[in-house]
Amino acid sequence: MSFKVIPLDEALNLFEKEFEKVSFEFVNLENANKRVIAEDFYAPFDFPPFSKSTVDGYAVKASDTFGASESNPLYFKIKGKIKIGEYPSYFISSSEVIEIPTGGVLPSGADAAIMIEHTNKIDEDTVEILKSVAPYENIVRIGEDFEKGKLIFEKGYRLKAQDLGVFSAFGIIRIKVYKKPDVSIISTGDEIIHPKEELNLGKVRDMNTYILKALVEDSFANPVILGITKDNLGEILEKLKKALEISNIIIISGGSSVGTRDLTLKAISLLEDSKILFHGLNIKPGKPTIFAKVKGKAVIGLPGHPTSATLVFLELVRPLIRFISGEKNWRKRIKLKTTVLENIHSAVGMKHFIRVKLKGNCAKPIYGKSALIFPMIEADGYFEINEQKEGVLKGEEVEIVLFE
Amino acid sequence: MSFKVIPLDEALNLFEKEFEKVSFEFVNLENANKRVIAEDFYAPFDFPPFSKSTVDGYAVKASDTFGASESNPLYFKIKGKIKIGEYPSYFISSSEVIEIPTGGVLPSGADAAIMIEHTNKIDEDTVEILKSVAPYENIVRIGEDFEKGKLIFEKGYRLKAQDLGVFSAFGIIRIKVYKKPDVSIISTGDEIIHPKEELNLGKVRDMNTYILKALVEDSFANPVILGITKDNLGEILEKLKKALEISNIIIISGGSSVGTRDLTLKAISLLEDSKILFHGLNIKPGKPTIFAKVKGKAVIGLPGHPTSATLVFLELVRPLIRFISGEKNWRKRIKLKTTVLENIHSAVGMKHFIRVKLKGNCAKPIYGKSALIFPMIEADGYFEINEQKEGVLKGEEVEIVLFE
Repeated sequence: MSFKVIPLDEALNLFEKEFEKVSFEFVNLENANKRVIAEDFYAPFDFPPFSKSTVDGYAVKASDTFGASESNPLYFKIKGKIKIGEYPSYFISSSEVIEIPTGGVLPSGADAAIMIEHTNKIDEDTVEILKSVAPYENIVRIGEDFEKGKLIFEKGYRLKAQDLGVFSAFGIIRIKVYKKPDVSIISTGDEIIHPKEELNLGKVRDMNTYILKALVEDSFANPVILGITKDNLGEILEKLKKALEISNIIIISGGSSVGTRDLTLKAISLLEDSKILFHGLNIKPGKPTIFAKVKGKAVIGLPGHPTSATLVFLELVRPLIRFISGEKNWRKRIKLKTTVLENIHSAVGMKHFIRVKLKGNCAKPIYGKSALIFPMIEADGYFEINEQKEGVLKGEEVEIVLFE
Repeated sequence: MSFKVIPLDEALNLFEKEFEKVSFEFVNLENANKRVIAEDFYAPFDFPPFSKSTVDGYAVKASDTFGASESNPLYFKIKGKIKIGEYPSYFISSSEVIEIPTGGVLPSGADAAIMIEHTNKIDEDTVEILKSVAPYENIVRIGEDFEKGKLIFEKGYRLKAQDLGVFSAFGIIRIKVYKKPDVSIISTGDEIIHPKEELNLGKVRDMNTYILKALVEDSFANPVILGITKDNLGEILEKLKKALEISNIIIISGGSSVGTRDLTLKAISLLEDSKILFHGLNIKPGKPTIFAKVKGKAVIGLPGHPTSATLVFLELVRPLIRFISGEKNWRKRIKLKTTVLENIHSAVGMKHFIRVKLKGNCAKPIYGKSALIFPMIEADGYFEINEQKEGVLKGEEVEIVLFE
């Protein structure tokens, strides 16, 4: 069967046209880390909801302190003391101050705080002020963090640790997020056996299931292990049908031979409401990749070699998971700039992925047939050489995607 | 109480002297992603355990093909066909070939494979070879990936997705790893309330519990939420004692006022077998940090402000978790090189952490009092200006730690 080979960018452009995002659910605040928010979040009220001191000292009206210095102290009446966590019943007038702790609510009439280090308590009722403060000095004003109505998180944003603090601050304990996609993983090939089976020569223990499960976890989706299928059309069809019932994305990592690949392609084609989007990616390694839409779900046939399967996962499946998870910036990725230590050859007309090990600020290519595993173990990440380029030169700057 | 302030580097140097790593356990292969391996792992046998073809075609003795070309084809007898997953009963002699699929076991007598594209099948028994191959071309040799006895993973290495494939390849389905440390999280302060409570003015909803839980998860440890404690010595002591029974590391994020901090310090000091290692880190933000060893366990008093607590977590607690988790390279971190867009001031004699937002290849500082949250929400990460430096200049290169 001939390949319908397309460039990787074109493959990524299919997502928005062909697939829908998962639906939403509500999770408790403490379980929202790394989840994708499913609605815009606006500040429901001014935060902080009251002005407060950021120092231990005295709440003052700033203008009263103007001119105060070590050599010219000013004297104030201590009107009272504010406790942490309490709303003050006090207000202050000119030449009055109130003792205040860090985080204490600023009393009416005050617009600044002065650190205890810049004061001298003379007696229970009197304090000497040794430094002037400006209005709003050493305080946080109402709404200084977030004004009511401000857009804080956009729909499609993946939440980080510190973001959870914002929801807590506003008293939000249930958060509307996109569901995690379920991703089924199938291994195929007559030579593939479960790792616990005895290794008769000629067989190969299943590596892809374990690698792909971990990669799905790293992508914040739910992996579903469906096990190993022999090179048998009926068996493959049955597994695929089961997978379609229980998952949003199906990954079937084919045997490495043309025969197995054709069988996978045939099985996918035979499924009801199936549309092969492409079979062949213009990348190396990873060319024999199948991508189909079946009943609205994504079915991806990955190459059998673990190295190729991993790279296609990172370049195609992970972006797809992120897109289907509702992530707005699903294409965005952090890359590390570095320079290569050797000339590296690549053929024009195909996108090449070169595995590298980082040596200080430089990257050393790790070569090896895609049938080997060790280069993926030894490498820290990889970079791409695009279709237009014929290799890179020693000292050239490249952008590394790091393995997690 | 006066501060015993130490530099951050000195704090990190205490770990090896003061704390022990957690013990080990066995996990199933499919659950070993991101776990730290607790023993050196050597290849138990040559892998692959047999030579195999990396193409669909014919197994040949390379020297027999020398001289073959399109214009000068050589003719070979097809002795048989090897099926995928089967050990060949064949061997080949001169001018004989055997059909072989990708991944098929190379038969005795063969030392290379030729791609089907470079052959022409004349009849059932005869094939025309149109290209010569070199010895070992298009095959993977026994042990080419890993020779028996090779050290593949060192004790203390954190496993990645593709590493799991290696264990599977060798039939290892239970892996000896360090346990995940249990990290208790306590919030203190009379002003702190649970996010579901109604917000009376003067109170602040607990942010640190949720931020710290997520940060502990991001560090591959088990968070244990112990809730909020009032500024009450007895209550704090009780919580700390409970935490010591159930966890390896205890994080207590203090109120922001000096009073609360002193109370936390006093409570930690009063615990049996307690040793305050320092109370004060020479960093900004994050100075009021307490670090103690109690019954061999680490107790860390974090500043109350979420921004400071987060930064101290990333700079002190995360390395500690990684160290206690058995990770060998616990100090190693990936940083992103970038240039700053503005002059940034910092005081000599203290390490400053500057939050930044990435703008293309540059970093824009995000200023804000440490009592505010929004700069941590807006920033993509931060960089440090060390104690010897007085700020950085516009265009200077800095190394960003990214928020996850």
